[in-house]
Amino acid sequence: MKALEEKILKDGSVLPGNILKVGSFLNQQMDVGFLMKMGKEIARLYKKEKITKILTVEASGIAIAVVAAAALKVPAIFAKKSKSSNVSGALYSAVVHSYTHNTDYTITVPADYISSDDRILLVDDFLANGYALMGLKKIVEDAGATVVGAAIAIEKGFQQGGDMLRRSGLRVESLAIIDEMTDTGVSFR
Amino acid sequence: MKALEEKILKDGSVLPGNILKVGSFLNQQMDVGFLMKMGKEIARLYKKEKITKILTVEASGIAIAVVAAAALKVPAIFAKKSKSSNVSGALYSAVVHSYTHNTDYTITVPADYISSDDRILLVDDFLANGYALMGLKKIVEDAGATVVGAAIAIEKGFQQGGDMLRRSGLRVESLAIIDEMTDTGVSFR
Repeated sequence: MKALEEKILKDGSVLPGNILKVGSFLNQQMDVGFLMKMGKEIARLYKKEKITKILTVEASGIAIAVVAAAALKVPAIFAKKSKSSNVSGALYSAVVHSYTHNTDYTITVPADYISSDDRILLVDDFLANGYALMGLKKIVEDAGATVVGAAIAIEKGFQQGGDMLRRSGLRVESLAIIDEMTDTGVSFR
Repeated sequence: MKALEEKILKDGSVLPGNILKVGSFLNQQMDVGFLMKMGKEIARLYKKEKITKILTVEASGIAIAVVAAAALKVPAIFAKKSKSSNVSGALYSAVVHSYTHNTDYTITVPADYISSDDRILLVDDFLANGYALMGLKKIVEDAGATVVGAAIAIEKGFQQGGDMLRRSGLRVESLAIIDEMTDTGVSFR
């Protein structure tokens, strides 16, 4: 999505440790008009897939999930993060490794929000090592539902998550794929 | 907002401890089409106020903030929750007491997301004791910006937050105000 690449170049910045800072329009501050366009692009990419629900992880995935759901006219669900693996009740859960914080956390979705006839699109703001998406995929599969694919705002193409997930057969559509980030710039695939 | 009251009666449920469960359409699972209508109602209520930004708290406030921002055509910001009060960098912060978890947490917003000429609408999914809104109000005031008012999806009118904030002079618009919740039903103001 050319407009997203331009927005990253204009409003994003690269911090030490391969961190791309896009908090001014995509994360903590949200340019909602621009996000709505991203949601429409996701809907265009997946319009033939008869998607019934969108699944993301709190907190930074919620905004992009909401705009994609608005464009696809389906509900959105977010998995909650818990530090404890001791979750109870009728929940689907998965353990996700956080590379940023070097710790594991558990994500959960109430069992009654996903049924076996759902066709689910996974949505997230970033794709790097792919651990969060793998956790979401496990939750949908545990529910016996279908993972249609994943829609990502920004993929860090120099990390292995996107390639790994595509090799596993998952359709992954990223609105922008960054191949290289340096102090002096960002280059896209 | 009559449609929200009907939705609460149809899809909500009351759990012990005065907990209203609306997770199936407003929180962890989001009926985004319905949320968009709520966003439009918030925009209608505040359309004369020249709002420049919306401010909420992660995670459950993000969806309602996004739809309100879409309708008002302004950016939305969410304050991040931190368990530590030891926050650094150019941040505005406030300490908020969580009645549910009986603990304090700190909410933060990067200083460069709010400027003194901003006219800010506070948005949240629930209003009970009002502590989260007071924290958001402090952050906006610390930034020298104007708090135009607050827009809430569901106010627990039997708790003191809404009355306290209105007495302090803040405009508070709640799309549904619950006066009483019992095992057998919910009654609205």
